[in-house]
Amino acid sequence: MLSCRGSDNDPRSCGEMINNDRLWNNLMTLGEIGKHPDGGITRLAFTKEDRYAISVVGALMKEAGLAVREDEVGNLIGRREGENPNAPAVLIGSHLDSVFNGGIFDGSLGVLAGIEVLQSMKEHGISTKHPIEVCVFRDEEGCRFNFSLLGSRGMAGTLQSENLGYKDNDGISLAEAMSGCGMNPEGFSRAARRSDDVLAYLELHVEQGKVLECANLPIGIVTGIASSLRLMVTVIGKADHAGATPMNLRFDALTAAALIIGVVEKEARATQSAVGTVGQIHAYPGGINIIPEKVEFTVDLRDVSAEVGQQLEIKILSQAKDICDQRGLTLQVDILQRVPPAPCSPEIINILADSCRELGITELQMPSGAGHDAMQMVNLCPIGMIFIRSQNGISHHPAEWSTPEDCAMGAQVLYQAVLKLAK
Amino acid sequence: MLSCRGSDNDPRSCGEMINNDRLWNNLMTLGEIGKHPDGGITRLAFTKEDRYAISVVGALMKEAGLAVREDEVGNLIGRREGENPNAPAVLIGSHLDSVFNGGIFDGSLGVLAGIEVLQSMKEHGISTKHPIEVCVFRDEEGCRFNFSLLGSRGMAGTLQSENLGYKDNDGISLAEAMSGCGMNPEGFSRAARRSDDVLAYLELHVEQGKVLECANLPIGIVTGIASSLRLMVTVIGKADHAGATPMNLRFDALTAAALIIGVVEKEARATQSAVGTVGQIHAYPGGINIIPEKVEFTVDLRDVSAEVGQQLEIKILSQAKDICDQRGLTLQVDILQRVPPAPCSPEIINILADSCRELGITELQMPSGAGHDAMQMVNLCPIGMIFIRSQNGISHHPAEWSTPEDCAMGAQVLYQAVLKLAK
Repeated sequence: MLSCRGSDNDPRSCGEMINNDRLWNNLMTLGEIGKHPDGGITRLAFTKEDRYAISVVGALMKEAGLAVREDEVGNLIGRREGENPNAPAVLIGSHLDSVFNGGIFDGSLGVLAGIEVLQSMKEHGISTKHPIEVCVFRDEEGCRFNFSLLGSRGMAGTLQSENLGYKDNDGISLAEAMSGCGMNPEGFSRAARRSDDVLAYLELHVEQGKVLECANLPIGIVTGIASSLRLMVTVIGKADHAGATPMNLRFDALTAAALIIGVVEKEARATQSAVGTVGQIHAYPGGINIIPEKVEFTVDLRDVSAEVGQQLEIKILSQAKDICDQRGLTLQVDILQRVPPAPCSPEIINILADSCRELGITELQMPSGAGHDAMQMVNLCPIGMIFIRSQNGISHHPAEWSTPEDCAMGAQVLYQAVLKLAK
Repeated sequence: MLSCRGSDNDPRSCGEMINNDRLWNNLMTLGEIGKHPDGGITRLAFTKEDRYAISVVGALMKEAGLAVREDEVGNLIGRREGENPNAPAVLIGSHLDSVFNGGIFDGSLGVLAGIEVLQSMKEHGISTKHPIEVCVFRDEEGCRFNFSLLGSRGMAGTLQSENLGYKDNDGISLAEAMSGCGMNPEGFSRAARRSDDVLAYLELHVEQGKVLECANLPIGIVTGIASSLRLMVTVIGKADHAGATPMNLRFDALTAAALIIGVVEKEARATQSAVGTVGQIHAYPGGINIIPEKVEFTVDLRDVSAEVGQQLEIKILSQAKDICDQRGLTLQVDILQRVPPAPCSPEIINILADSCRELGITELQMPSGAGHDAMQMVNLCPIGMIFIRSQNGISHHPAEWSTPEDCAMGAQVLYQAVLKLAK
């Protein structure tokens, strides 16, 4: 367990420690928003659950003395001025939106840890040369529009106007969803920050894997984030009667899709580092006694090496084409997103490692297989990330869990690092 | 082309011929109900399109002089009395409901041919010893409730009360849908007919395959109908983060389901007679960046030999279990329906063959891979079926087509056969 240098075990009496209980209580309160009976949460971007979570966090930011605003892509930003208001700001960020029936730590912990850092600084009467901001990025997960990192793209200036035309399953476009929340999507480019306005970006996040647990360590320092390629694959065959069409006269889109799903698994496994996932599949027309004429499915490929990721993509797509050609089917592949790997700043990695050393924590330096808002922020400024151990490596699931002790330790590392960066 | 024995080429002037144009016009008119822009139709059971089609056909029955009633499972029955009203009836039947975006011939042609036979008899002043009925069976396709042959089960006395609890994708049960159409589902058993009340069942239907086309023949006489087994297969694994879960730590329900879909195809092919189809698949929770924790898919297996069908089922399910066991997944298999093969009556086959001979038609005797209401009616009385050649073998698709000449020829064979049976 952490103890402060004042050797008093009550963190509130220790000038340089964050308030562990407050952080945990805020996390549990936020975890009630969008909660299912089984404990999972669903807070898709621009839904009422998402908006409610943002309003709760906005109130916490105000309590921490921050000036709160929402930018043109719906990011919530709380800013604490520095002694030099013109100095570039240190940004701390994460997100509040979730996957379908996800966990309560993913995103929320990073946002609340950032606010806790600034609330504690305020209580300890600490001022810094650089301004510090906590950013809640809108729609990190991308579950609703099959397009992730909306808010951080907006801030990093990498969002494209065509992205706003993407639609959810009900045919509502991203632009329409934004308008429905009282925003003006045409003004999205004004959310982009200038590089000389930002000093660094820090993000604390649950690991969402088993690497730290297997190493028996609470804290990871991320060396870089894996690339992310998301494809929509469509196989087109011919609908026919399931009873009257012999096996050798079929143009079945689903049996070909099944083979391609097998290729994704086999080739990702073969790299020993990449991961490949088919998370969505739809067969049309969907009658029990009709041979499927069209199947759409997503492919999610990631690797920390750009080269391995590229080779994997080529192997999968060439085999998919062969499968469809051999069966007289049409293959269509649409790129939903392609994000290159994002290296973390060596200087920030050192600052985070120093912070751990001061606190007596042994950290693990590791890559991130999951994507994060930092992947976009790397286009704007140096980035750094802190990982918190995930119980059983589970994430995007109601059983997602990290202990109060690990969460507090991570937030304390963030506190130390922010102080060093913001001076 | 057919010509009547009176050698006059205008069918309406020929005492013993049906009216080809009227049959074709009625078919085209009915094909407008539930029509999509691409020409396909969707008339799921107990929907407004289904009810409208039934009301149109009810009016045609009345024009043909039939006494019209709806029985307790929603079958529409038009009856023409015989000289001996106590003699068992000759039934002619088929259905009006369709698959999603299906063709206009499937079911409708059989119903309209039956009505045309009785309309022509009325016009020709022909009376018969036995009563004759045209039956429109409700929900033959079973697309809405994943349960086919509802109406013919009801009439044959094989419907079970538990079947009425089956639900559609909106959670509406069969019983609720029936009540919504003003029916009393609890009274379903009163739809069952007594064996001594029914002499024979005849059905005319499009082939829905390429056998007749390949043989260059317009008319098939069915020797028997293949068995039909419909399964709902559920694979249960574990949801995990698609980026942070290495390939070797996954419990992915979809990659296992994909392998099982491959087994269905491989094993069905190996029999050289059976067909196996996966027409529906759903992956949960369905996020692009979440490993699927549950996949549900249907399996439709058919063979004219009960033994081949049984062996196929055993082979597929044992391999599915191995796949799930090896991957630490749970497999669940629910039987949605199991219908044994239905042999056609040798006497009726002879009557149909004689009818073809009289008309100068060379017919093909062949099994039916597709299921039909006759599969249920075989439990009540001897059955016989006439197949009409399908263009390119296409069915359950907007491109389903048979020529006016082939349809007329089939209806004329039906007319001759009904006359012989009803005397």
